[in-house]
Amino acid sequence: MKLWDKGLSIDKKIENFTVGNDREIDIHIAKYDIKASLAHAKMLAKTNFITKKELNLLVDGLNILQQQIEEKTFKIDSNFEDVHSKIEFDLTQICGEVGKKIHTARSRNDQVLVALHLYYKNNLQFISSKVKTLFNTLLELADTYKTKTLPGYTHLQVAMPSSFGLWFSAYAELLIDDLYIINAALKTVDQNPLGSAAGYGSSFPIDRNFTTEELEFATLKYNVVAAQMSRGKSERTIAMALGSLSNTLARFAMDICLYMSQNFDFISFPDELTTGSSIMPHKKNPDVFELIRGKCNKIQSLHTEMVLITNNLPSGYHRDYQLLKENMILGFEETKDILDIFDYSIQQIIVKDVDLNDDKYKYLYTVDNINTLIENGQSFREAYQKIGKEVTNGTYIPDTSKKHSHHGSINNLCLDEIRTKMRTL
Amino acid sequence: MKLWDKGLSIDKKIENFTVGNDREIDIHIAKYDIKASLAHAKMLAKTNFITKKELNLLVDGLNILQQQIEEKTFKIDSNFEDVHSKIEFDLTQICGEVGKKIHTARSRNDQVLVALHLYYKNNLQFISSKVKTLFNTLLELADTYKTKTLPGYTHLQVAMPSSFGLWFSAYAELLIDDLYIINAALKTVDQNPLGSAAGYGSSFPIDRNFTTEELEFATLKYNVVAAQMSRGKSERTIAMALGSLSNTLARFAMDICLYMSQNFDFISFPDELTTGSSIMPHKKNPDVFELIRGKCNKIQSLHTEMVLITNNLPSGYHRDYQLLKENMILGFEETKDILDIFDYSIQQIIVKDVDLNDDKYKYLYTVDNINTLIENGQSFREAYQKIGKEVTNGTYIPDTSKKHSHHGSINNLCLDEIRTKMRTL
Amino acid sequence: MKLWDKGLSIDKKIENFTVGNDREIDIHIAKYDIKASLAHAKMLAKTNFITKKELNLLVDGLNILQQQIEEKTFKIDSNFEDVHSKIEFDLTQICGEVGKKIHTARSRNDQVLVALHLYYKNNLQFISSKVKTLFNTLLELADTYKTKTLPGYTHLQVAMPSSFGLWFSAYAELLIDDLYIINAALKTVDQNPLGSAAGYGSSFPIDRNFTTEELEFATLKYNVVAAQMSRGKSERTIAMALGSLSNTLARFAMDICLYMSQNFDFISFPDELTTGSSIMPHKKNPDVFELIRGKCNKIQSLHTEMVLITNNLPSGYHRDYQLLKENMILGFEETKDILDIFDYSIQQIIVKDVDLNDDKYKYLYTVDNINTLIENGQSFREAYQKIGKEVTNGTYIPDTSKKHSHHGSINNLCLDEIRTKMRTL
Amino acid sequence: MKLWDKGLSIDKKIENFTVGNDREIDIHIAKYDIKASLAHAKMLAKTNFITKKELNLLVDGLNILQQQIEEKTFKIDSNFEDVHSKIEFDLTQICGEVGKKIHTARSRNDQVLVALHLYYKNNLQFISSKVKTLFNTLLELADTYKTKTLPGYTHLQVAMPSSFGLWFSAYAELLIDDLYIINAALKTVDQNPLGSAAGYGSSFPIDRNFTTEELEFATLKYNVVAAQMSRGKSERTIAMALGSLSNTLARFAMDICLYMSQNFDFISFPDELTTGSSIMPHKKNPDVFELIRGKCNKIQSLHTEMVLITNNLPSGYHRDYQLLKENMILGFEETKDILDIFDYSIQQIIVKDVDLNDDKYKYLYTVDNINTLIENGQSFREAYQKIGKEVTNGTYIPDTSKKHSHHGSINNLCLDEIRTKMRTL
Repeated sequence: MKLWDKGLSIDKKIENFTVGNDREIDIHIAKYDIKASLAHAKMLAKTNFITKKELNLLVDGLNILQQQIEEKTFKIDSNFEDVHSKIEFDLTQICGEVGKKIHTARSRNDQVLVALHLYYKNNLQFISSKVKTLFNTLLELADTYKTKTLPGYTHLQVAMPSSFGLWFSAYAELLIDDLYIINAALKTVDQNPLGSAAGYGSSFPIDRNFTTEELEFATLKYNVVAAQMSRGKSERTIAMALGSLSNTLARFAMDICLYMSQNFDFISFPDELTTGSSIMPHKKNPDVFELIRGKCNKIQSLHTEMVLITNNLPSGYHRDYQLLKENMILGFEETKDILDIFDYSIQQIIVKDVDLNDDKYKYLYTVDNINTLIENGQSFREAYQKIGKEVTNGTYIPDTSKKHSHHGSINNLCLDEIRTKMRTL
Repeated sequence: MKLWDKGLSIDKKIENFTVGNDREIDIHIAKYDIKASLAHAKMLAKTNFITKKELNLLVDGLNILQQQIEEKTFKIDSNFEDVHSKIEFDLTQICGEVGKKIHTARSRNDQVLVALHLYYKNNLQFISSKVKTLFNTLLELADTYKTKTLPGYTHLQVAMPSSFGLWFSAYAELLIDDLYIINAALKTVDQNPLGSAAGYGSSFPIDRNFTTEELEFATLKYNVVAAQMSRGKSERTIAMALGSLSNTLARFAMDICLYMSQNFDFISFPDELTTGSSIMPHKKNPDVFELIRGKCNKIQSLHTEMVLITNNLPSGYHRDYQLLKENMILGFEETKDILDIFDYSIQQIIVKDVDLNDDKYKYLYTVDNINTLIENGQSFREAYQKIGKEVTNGTYIPDTSKKHSHHGSINNLCLDEIRTKMRTL
Repeated sequence: MKLWDKGLSIDKKIENFTVGNDREIDIHIAKYDIKASLAHAKMLAKTNFITKKELNLLVDGLNILQQQIEEKTFKIDSNFEDVHSKIEFDLTQICGEVGKKIHTARSRNDQVLVALHLYYKNNLQFISSKVKTLFNTLLELADTYKTKTLPGYTHLQVAMPSSFGLWFSAYAELLIDDLYIINAALKTVDQNPLGSAAGYGSSFPIDRNFTTEELEFATLKYNVVAAQMSRGKSERTIAMALGSLSNTLARFAMDICLYMSQNFDFISFPDELTTGSSIMPHKKNPDVFELIRGKCNKIQSLHTEMVLITNNLPSGYHRDYQLLKENMILGFEETKDILDIFDYSIQQIIVKDVDLNDDKYKYLYTVDNINTLIENGQSFREAYQKIGKEVTNGTYIPDTSKKHSHHGSINNLCLDEIRTKMRTL
Repeated sequence: MKLWDKGLSIDKKIENFTVGNDREIDIHIAKYDIKASLAHAKMLAKTNFITKKELNLLVDGLNILQQQIEEKTFKIDSNFEDVHSKIEFDLTQICGEVGKKIHTARSRNDQVLVALHLYYKNNLQFISSKVKTLFNTLLELADTYKTKTLPGYTHLQVAMPSSFGLWFSAYAELLIDDLYIINAALKTVDQNPLGSAAGYGSSFPIDRNFTTEELEFATLKYNVVAAQMSRGKSERTIAMALGSLSNTLARFAMDICLYMSQNFDFISFPDELTTGSSIMPHKKNPDVFELIRGKCNKIQSLHTEMVLITNNLPSGYHRDYQLLKENMILGFEETKDILDIFDYSIQQIIVKDVDLNDDKYKYLYTVDNINTLIENGQSFREAYQKIGKEVTNGTYIPDTSKKHSHHGSINNLCLDEIRTKMRTL
């Protein structure tokens, strides 16, 4: 047999090509495969495909494997192509022939689908709780720094007064929107696909309501063709949800990197959160936030990947779908890390005193000056022209006395209302 | 002044460059600008920025303009850069100087933001209702054709028996998932941004709760910086939602185009829904469904556009955001058309009799044969090997007697349960 | 017939749906359709499908239409679905029955393909020349401002000395890379597709070499199936090329917007190139560059659109391809405008004196200080630690005396070498 | 120190977060780092920064490491953050203090940039040669099967006669277009960036022409800021090039999967290239080609990732750029595997006899029938109507006698001309 570039036989090369990284990736879904197998076994007993005694054997065997997974002693050796074949093999080693009965009225597609649904559901919930943690951190920071002023920019030009309170709580409030999408994704995967078999159901009279309850899914994905098509749809939807969250975090990280620049100098971080340079001894770079930004941007591109893999394919399973899980699962793991690091790091932020009397900031108050003139009876047009002329002449003197008081403005951050919105989401 | 390629002066060219297609696009948001202006005017009266009498003048003027918009006599001439300046000009023509007072405690950014939120909200609701119409059509078709069988494919290879009932209702059930995302997008825009002004609020004591109720928003986007940042976030989220729906419709259209091919020949459509060729007199092409597919794929790319325009920009308004609305609004208009055309066309579908006894389909039933052997006491492995051998030997005879009975399978479509899921979404 | 939302009959709605914006878009390819028709007619005469006299009639008719197009009196009325049917109709009006003979041995697909190839080729060449104009402008600016220093940043942190000369010429040199891709796109479309008919060639013995020469294509796309598949391939490739250029311009525009911020204050522009605010009288916003950035980002998303429309479609024409041309052509028109505006505007740039003695910039020279120590015999490690300690102690004094002299550094910009690289591209 | 979810300390978690997968990925660029270090060391000797003796020590040390890399005994242990620090450490272990001198007049950014350029260049050339191999395979197949007919489709509807010869050589000719882009990408990376240091050059008088020649780069990226910005630009450009090639291969794979469906049944593959099903004993699925399609679609999404990571970032290095290399390098490795597998597998193709006399194909010849009538003197319109009427009446009899003879048509594939085009590319 002809040898290839890397000294691999063609068979080996084709095997590697088709297996891909499944062995490494599947470790993340091992425990969910066990969970689904337990539910499936119980259903088989309930519908008399297997005996009570057989069920007990299977349950014991699956529990042993679950423990190995928890203790991280479970490995998918290179003679197995994925986690599902490995678990079935081990189960048969432990329980004997009955181990094979678990495949009754179930297909590989079924197993992958339901294990992924469970992984996705569990991890979306986990991410949701981490988002709420970050939300709380940001609102606490907003409260702590609510009187610290900042210049507000439009077009990157000095515009109107802002504050750290506004800045922190803005990103907190935007996280609520991200949770709307995360919850929508959650609903999409919180539907039991088990029983779709190869995508057209089974001639066995399986009880899908039973497994739905056993696996604590909110409902069934009833139609078996639809259940099969949730492969791809789940991933596209989750990629949207993680992408939405990532966009918020990336934008926040961009602000942080900009505000740490010597030209803004609004914030800094302790040395252990910054990185030096191999050639410039003065450097304290915001690498953590740059990597958050970059990784979030990468996650935002996942949606395109998921769409491209599935787009324009007719209904029915295609092997292409195997490729969806790798970057999807890596995206989940990355997102959890990002949320941890962000929450930890932002708490270390050092908020600086920004001197709004500095010359470059003095026009921050022109709108407030105009408003004072309007309150004193001038028309908007007159007031605008008067202040505009003062700016041009160099005679403008800022009126820093005005207090913004309406809902959501500098002096009325509505943090409680924002908390309520999150709570009632 | 140097002349350019097209004989335009540089000033004119720069003006065109900055105005873009706003005049054409803005016509879609004109009525929402009026609606928001009415609410703002009432708030100004309530908080005593204007008198009751001034309010009445403004209300009368705005109503006149609203009627012109409804009657399609309202035009944005080329001496106005957008709908907002045109409306303010007309209002001043109608009401006199008081027309200018409507700009009190409001900025252009405010106006664009709130008008877009209202347009988006209204149109998402409209699309949602059209999706439900299509959902009902599909379930009716599923019911009508529930006994018509189809070959089911995996890997584009003949796999197991399916049916038109399964096929139609699969896409119906998937539409429910799309509505989860559409509803999430709806929640994102159903928050009043009015009052954020240039993105940092106003020193005027405006009443944002009042305009929230007046405009029937579910809640406020409290934080003014967050409100400003909903520019971009709204569009990204909506692009996801429309993209999700588009993916479902595009996949459905792909099936339709494939099933119309002479090599499948499962369905056809009346002549008026197909298109001929300029050189081939025998052609009846599925152009409508190809264009649905293509337009849906285009809509799926909107998300990338919205992300790229906004990505990595620091907080605060940037003029780039002006570019978000054009393709977003066109995407809405296109989506509504697609849903109409799809719903109309799919009702005309001609479902053919597919002869599953044809040689190429005979292995559809191997799994059913295996299951029969299992029910008669053989192990799965024995049964699989027996049938496998028959297939290889050419002695295989299909067992077409089995009925799939579990939830969501061919003979138990669960249409009512799917309807309930939609209703309780 | 049931009426629809907008009061359109279903037939009208379906017609609008299938025609799309072809009438508006096709005006851009009208003159290329005429050019291709002239070549096709001459080929028909050469191969004796038509007589010399018929050819003369056709040539006269086509020239009349070409003149109408140049004079912008040519319009595609709403009773024609595209430019090709309109031209054929007009030609028959002018020449009589012989007008219809031009369709001999040609199909609509043929016409669209060849007209698009010609449009694309011509416009890529035009864009290429505009890129060279901008390149020259930037190199002149680099030369003019070669001694004006700028702080150089890494991680948005003050890093090492840079200059306006480096900055302008960096973007110039990057434009050369963009031209590599533009030239590759040019090669892709500079192949005659005419003769592929519906995608499988013709039984007429047409002379494709003749039309290739007549239309000045560099070569043929020989294989008729490949020729048909260049629909989509051309657009994806061009979207890459325009996207590459757009990325360079967008990044440059980002720098400009940042450097105009009061916190950097490195550059400004005359008032007529900036925009004010409806509420802030002090504002001079860089709208032109923000719109360049935003439009360039939009163009970067075109590639995803082109991929999504064509992805996973089997070979052979699909109606979806009709949708490729709209945003592709608009992308070309936009790119040409952007290049004009950029070239015009950048010439107006006002380069400010940046005081590198300002405290926030003083660590720009630490690497130069280290290098001096190394030249005086210290090891890199010793020197780095010494200067690092001075920075920490606050005793650091910048050594601003060093001159960077190597190729491509501040004092040796290699503008001539860069010019040569462009010339020999 | 607070412990985290996975039992990692926060320091460890942040370290993992910033290091990412560099250790695994960097193994691919190890040999290029050595190569660049050799060139840099020689330049240091030539310009008298180090002595001839020191150079010899460094060269010997680097050669030892190069051999370890070739023998795959070189490993990047977990106490090194990347390949560059590991190599510098090992070099110092081998050569003593002089090992550190190699960092003179060079920065980490420099090292990464030049090593990536060399990896990219080498691998683009390798991919180019593999594309040519596949091109030759396809042209041989085209020649072998040039008389085997196939139905040609438009809109997935039976349209006109085609052939396996046309089909194979169409994809071959399209590969030439992909090479145009690959060559453009090659030009982009075939420019020496070494000497840009942190992105603003060095105050040492390094000799960049020397390293350019030593590393066999075609030219320099002169401007140091441009050199630094080639980070990101290279990856975007390469992602385009690999994406273009991937699109061609994915489309081809789609055709293959479709043509293997029982409903087309045009081709098949030996059993060892197909895959069975865990529940359906009759299955022979085209998994290899589905995975080629899926992986190619994944590679097509790389461009979006590269754009999103870099978009809208101001000039100057950002840590985000570290994230570009992982999926870029994996994309290269995947592309090489795909090309190998494709070339191997397509040679095993079993071309079936397609019976064009089958009823569903009989209208393939309507255009040929029309052309015969035209040649016999009828106008196109008359002929089209006559044949159209026969189709409608069911009296149509195909005229299968006509031979397509023009360039690039079924009977005149122009394989030599296509070969010449490839050769002179």
